Amino acid sequence: MEELIVVKIGGNIIDDDERLRSFLKSFAALRGNKILVHGGGKIATEIGYKMGIEPKYNDGRRITDKDTLALVTKVYGGLVSKNVVALLQANGCNAIGLTGADGNVIQAYKREVKDVDYGYVGDIAAGGVNQRTITALLQAGLVPVFAPLTHDGNGTMLNTNADTIAQEVAKALSVGYTTKLIYCFEKKGVLKDVDDDNSVIPHISKEDFEKMVAEQTIFEGMIPKLHNALTAVEHGVSGVLIGKAENLEQLAAGNAGTLIK
Amino acid sequence: MEELIVVKIGGNIIDDDERLRSFLKSFAALRGNKILVHGGGKIATEIGYKMGIEPKYNDGRRITDKDTLALVTKVYGGLVSKNVVALLQANGCNAIGLTGADGNVIQAYKREVKDVDYGYVGDIAAGGVNQRTITALLQAGLVPVFAPLTHDGNGTMLNTNADTIAQEVAKALSVGYTTKLIYCFEKKGVLKDVDDDNSVIPHISKEDFEKMVAEQTIFEGMIPKLHNALTAVEHGVSGVLIGKAENLEQLAAGNAGTLIK
Repeated sequence: MEELIVVKIGGNIIDDDERLRSFLKSFAALRGNKILVHGGGKIATEIGYKMGIEPKYNDGRRITDKDTLALVTKVYGGLVSKNVVALLQANGCNAIGLTGADGNVIQAYKREVKDVDYGYVGDIAAGGVNQRTITALLQAGLVPVFAPLTHDGNGTMLNTNADTIAQEVAKALSVGYTTKLIYCFEKKGVLKDVDDDNSVIPHISKEDFEKMVAEQTIFEGMIPKLHNALTAVEHGVSGVLIGKAENLEQLAAGNAGTLIK
Repeated sequence: MEELIVVKIGGNIIDDDERLRSFLKSFAALRGNKILVHGGGKIATEIGYKMGIEPKYNDGRRITDKDTLALVTKVYGGLVSKNVVALLQANGCNAIGLTGADGNVIQAYKREVKDVDYGYVGDIAAGGVNQRTITALLQAGLVPVFAPLTHDGNGTMLNTNADTIAQEVAKALSVGYTTKLIYCFEKKGVLKDVDDDNSVIPHISKEDFEKMVAEQTIFEGMIPKLHNALTAVEHGVSGVLIGKAENLEQLAAGNAGTLIK
């Protein structure tokens, strides 16, 4: 099977023009089949304030009301997506910006209201990723760039977590590609010692993870990230790498970051 | 050759939710290969005011400064495009929202500064429409939906007239398809008598047009529209139809509007 790399970058890079440009340059230089998934960034909140849209929270969780949905559709689906695509094109990478609605590539459902009503937030349904259309785009030489937005199939866009999109796309594409998933974050990888940036653990297996949790030798904030990574691996992804955006080339080559496998 | 219909709708439909939904339903029902090109609408100006962006004019011509470019990238490339795509998907039409940057489908250059500096406005270069990629999308069963935005290939988006995009796309695709171009506007067609909505001229040839101009029997505002239509026909488009969005089905069947051929 051909190889495919799915790379996820967070809002922190989107918000930093210089880092973004440098990252996109190295992403464009990656050879072979690739997909980029980007987060939203604080820019939506800032633009919202200018328009009089205050971020709303319920129990500490951000709520996507109607105005916020229109805001993120503009900012993530328009401004951020098109700027990323235009910059990739300038670097010779034939990017195409997508939300889940485009080509019906990711269908989701509005999150059920239990304790909290999150509003227009989408959870991806089983089979919600349209592997066939994404594959057709890759085969046409295109590089899909996903904004953190999906749709419900009934005409409504939905705000959707970028980590989840990256994971679900990587899982779905594993049917036809040997797929590697790279999560770019602030640290060089999963650290043995949170205070030592160079204490990167090079490799974590399921057994390692369970042992680390049991012995409480892992930073609590990493637990859901690693749990998701292991779920992806269990669903066909060949390996998940966690590391610094600035080390993308080495991450893709397997020479940096933490490999979860 | 297979047939292809390129339909252009203006901002007036984008701004009217009910008309838009009804139009998209009939567009979704059109059979065969099709492409939609949409204008921007007043919504960008309205959102701009909320953000403190006043529309700028120079000699009566709208100027796209940096703030306005970011605004239209959000609104046309994000909000409008994604809502149109999500609604088409809800009607069973596999739409994919594109700007010129996506898949590098339309490359333009920033309009030269002569008397007026229009700012970030793009004119489409000869060969600027990437017929191959658009064809690949059509062949993958997708329905391209163009927002009125292009890019310069160097990382900058450009505000671009939707009529021009429709015309250039139709011309470029004529290489591989028998292409019909439909311009939806307020009237049922080109009118013999501006005050009589039912005086639609069913057919205008180049000779008819020249005669009408010489005899001044044509409404002045129609001259550039007809001139563009004839240029499209001279460049391979099989026919250009001008008529009411509400009559899309009949326009596509050649039973309404004015056919320029």
